[in-house]
Amino acid sequence: MPTLAERIQPALNIRENSLEATARLKRPLSELPANVMGIPRSCGLLTETELELTEKYDATALVTMLANGKVSAEALLTAFRKRATIAHECTNCLTELIPEAIESAKACDRFLARTGNPIGPLHGLPISVKEQISIAGHYTNVGFVSMVSNHSTEDASIVKSLKSLGAVVFARTNQPQSLMQLETSNNVYGATVNPRNRGLTAGGSTGGEGALMAMHGTPLGIGGDIGGSIRVPAALNGTYGFYPSIGRISGEGALVPSPGCDSIPGTLGPFARSLRDIELFCKSYSLTKPWMDDASLIPGDILSPRHKPANALRVGILVDDGVVSPFPPVQTVMRELQERLGKHHSIHVVPFKPLDHEEAWRIISANYFEDGGADIRNICQAGNEPLLPMTEWIIRQCQENASRVAPTMQGRKMARDQFRQKYNAHWNEAGIDVLLAPVTPSTAPPLGATPYWAYTAVWNLLQYPAIAVPGASYIGDWDRRSLSGMNYRPKTELEKLMLEDYSPEVSQGMPVGVQVIAKRMHEDILLHAAYTIENALRITKHDSML
Amino acid sequence: MPTLAERIQPALNIRENSLEATARLKRPLSELPANVMGIPRSCGLLTETELELTEKYDATALVTMLANGKVSAEALLTAFRKRATIAHECTNCLTELIPEAIESAKACDRFLARTGNPIGPLHGLPISVKEQISIAGHYTNVGFVSMVSNHSTEDASIVKSLKSLGAVVFARTNQPQSLMQLETSNNVYGATVNPRNRGLTAGGSTGGEGALMAMHGTPLGIGGDIGGSIRVPAALNGTYGFYPSIGRISGEGALVPSPGCDSIPGTLGPFARSLRDIELFCKSYSLTKPWMDDASLIPGDILSPRHKPANALRVGILVDDGVVSPFPPVQTVMRELQERLGKHHSIHVVPFKPLDHEEAWRIISANYFEDGGADIRNICQAGNEPLLPMTEWIIRQCQENASRVAPTMQGRKMARDQFRQKYNAHWNEAGIDVLLAPVTPSTAPPLGATPYWAYTAVWNLLQYPAIAVPGASYIGDWDRRSLSGMNYRPKTELEKLMLEDYSPEVSQGMPVGVQVIAKRMHEDILLHAAYTIENALRITKHDSML
Repeated sequence: MPTLAERIQPALNIRENSLEATARLKRPLSELPANVMGIPRSCGLLTETELELTEKYDATALVTMLANGKVSAEALLTAFRKRATIAHECTNCLTELIPEAIESAKACDRFLARTGNPIGPLHGLPISVKEQISIAGHYTNVGFVSMVSNHSTEDASIVKSLKSLGAVVFARTNQPQSLMQLETSNNVYGATVNPRNRGLTAGGSTGGEGALMAMHGTPLGIGGDIGGSIRVPAALNGTYGFYPSIGRISGEGALVPSPGCDSIPGTLGPFARSLRDIELFCKSYSLTKPWMDDASLIPGDILSPRHKPANALRVGILVDDGVVSPFPPVQTVMRELQERLGKHHSIHVVPFKPLDHEEAWRIISANYFEDGGADIRNICQAGNEPLLPMTEWIIRQCQENASRVAPTMQGRKMARDQFRQKYNAHWNEAGIDVLLAPVTPSTAPPLGATPYWAYTAVWNLLQYPAIAVPGASYIGDWDRRSLSGMNYRPKTELEKLMLEDYSPEVSQGMPVGVQVIAKRMHEDILLHAAYTIENALRITKHDSML
Repeated sequence: MPTLAERIQPALNIRENSLEATARLKRPLSELPANVMGIPRSCGLLTETELELTEKYDATALVTMLANGKVSAEALLTAFRKRATIAHECTNCLTELIPEAIESAKACDRFLARTGNPIGPLHGLPISVKEQISIAGHYTNVGFVSMVSNHSTEDASIVKSLKSLGAVVFARTNQPQSLMQLETSNNVYGATVNPRNRGLTAGGSTGGEGALMAMHGTPLGIGGDIGGSIRVPAALNGTYGFYPSIGRISGEGALVPSPGCDSIPGTLGPFARSLRDIELFCKSYSLTKPWMDDASLIPGDILSPRHKPANALRVGILVDDGVVSPFPPVQTVMRELQERLGKHHSIHVVPFKPLDHEEAWRIISANYFEDGGADIRNICQAGNEPLLPMTEWIIRQCQENASRVAPTMQGRKMARDQFRQKYNAHWNEAGIDVLLAPVTPSTAPPLGATPYWAYTAVWNLLQYPAIAVPGASYIGDWDRRSLSGMNYRPKTELEKLMLEDYSPEVSQGMPVGVQVIAKRMHEDILLHAAYTIENALRITKHDSML
């Protein structure tokens, strides 16, 4: 039997050959600094125009420029192919670049030249996608060794939709073994690291997108989230990530290790550079009416209007979930945001008491694997690959908590349903429109140190949509030195364990994400609230108009 | 240990004492004719006004009369309490009348007198509900002996909603053991029979509502449907029944034998006298915004507008599902309706080929009981009551088909999801707005003879909303003598078995229901189409305006 290295070689060859030849760093990873954020600019491989195109604009700006012919789809794609290659060489974020994208970009340009009109609202926009999302004519392995030869004959539904809107799907990004980790490492492609500190994780499971977007290697990305897998890498990389309600975005053709396991469904969702890019994605995607072809979706636009608050927006604030207290950087950012929002006339800040998030974690983890993780073990066994420690950990969590919650799957689903009803009543009682909360209790930890998911997973249990926004970025020159002064006394074994991987020094300069959360299917109110909060924070940052 | 008779006696006493004393027939059931539809009029227990109030109006007319003070809530309730008592004595359709309803009706009258306004859009309207729906202060046994002392401390969510709209919940109706039968019989209350022929079933599982409504013993009823349990009794009793999409109507407080079993969810829905009564229910209920308090619901009005067909309505016609060919009465009605609709300018009739409904039945029955029926067996065992033959039958169907479909629950859910996607594509390809199809392959059979559910259950598998309408009633004096002339040759053992219970003579005069079906969550188009079809049939009935 061939060795593991021999078996994954075809996948690595495909990746190697797909990268943009004109943008290879030709330096071993070990020679790179810990913080590689400056490499795309310092390496000299990108032209000034390419630097500007990849750094200066969000997707909303780019689609306007593309539609006006201010930039060609081909030139834009080249810029992002080069920058993505550099980002990959620094962080190991890609599984491949898609060669056919070049022809797609040229076709966009020809279409515009011929008709004078863009193909659609995403005309010529390069978009990256998590590897689990099938691309016709490519292999889709979901980070499993046994699946490196799993050939996809059809594009995933989301890819079809994006292409029909004129987008150019150009890159595929890395994910962890089993997809069930809040970091990114697998036995095929290895680990994706954080571009601000390569000793730390980029988060996960959509960590490839997180790192790629942090380095401006993509203007818009698609990931998946079942417990925080979009919001966590967005938060740890200082970008935006959107976990929509279940039933909004088609997952057809996005491979998972346990199909049919739907007690806790995951969903795809976008990574973006701005709130308006999330809006651009939602509105464009809804134009394709994906619910027509995917019977699992709830018909209707993602941003179909709900009853908006008549007066001041009522924003609940959750700083500490009562299980794992956030470390000083996250507490500092949350309290600073709370204070600033409290001063703004359009926002009414309401302290929000979490409702037993420890129980929430027990219930959601008990419901994750209906088969107790057997499918994942079997796929790993078929590839003769070891289970990674964090895969073992989540399977064990599931098994232990399953026996705590209820002896049968029906009982565990009842616990889930009852918790949803209880939390819904609790939320109603608080009378809030949205909630502002941390995404993770700390800044990016090292690989192997994400044993607490509940800051994100509780909203997966409830199916409440949430947008991760780069919380620290609103604050500007907040005094990071205060972090070391803050006294954090661990009250549980879990906090003690996590504290081992925290240091104020390492946290300096690392992004802190926060999330805005709304009730199920209330994406319109969610986005409205996120805009309102962001505007308020931008204004208060400059201490004007209070 | 007390005998079964002794253990159910308390439940029977409650029922007996709850009936309206002034409307007792005081004749043994055995002395009643087979067809009891004329008894309420012939028995002399109802005044002319009471006969008119209960027979002449639909709920929409009644709520107008109530709001205008043309009839008092108390007088209307008395009329329906009396008529329901008579209906019950003829068909065994009730489990109890609710004494508190009298005070509720009086409170409605006082409110109107004091304020000049109705309490809400259902002000003073008597509504009956299936027994499984909890009523505070009453026992809720779901037809199980072991549950006769199961005390409900809180109204079910739907009851709260109806009360808040001004309705007077006044009667509870019979259901079968386990709720999983398309007829109505249990070891507590016995069987509910068809008022047009007491030798036949009233259908099920909401058979109590069906019989009660056929006899004009209620103007609006609430039942539940997981495989046809609203539509079948509506069809077999010549009334309207609505199976809405899952996630529309709160089932909180509606008891089921297997909570947490959600692979195929059921839903509550209304029985009505007219399409506009279904509209009245939907609009009124949506006003209560039930999704605010029930996290399992999809936010939004039931009739929230969808894109309506611009030109002629495209109505698919399914006469024969390819598994069990309908018996002559149903075929005759379907072909007659098809012919008449085909002549109408506002409708484009499209023959629709069913997509493997045999497989649909295998998949849905395999998914019904995640525990293989263990919960039902346990509840029966706890009450030391025998499983009824049709309960045994559906559990056996589930077990046999489970092993055929897939060895694991995940596999059976995958089969379900794949079938949904396949059927969705098939429907799209047909390009229809709605489908018109039989509800059952025959008119009401005797008790114990409903071994084929797929005419309704396929739409439960797909979660497509459907309205059962009294198909034969549009046709008028169609030649029922043709039924005996039609040659029906059974092509399978199942058809042969069912044919044993069919006779043209017994079918004479029995209702034939048909259903209008729309895609998931498309209730607005469904109701619009049902109106269009009904109007077309009313017009063509008089051979005018073709």
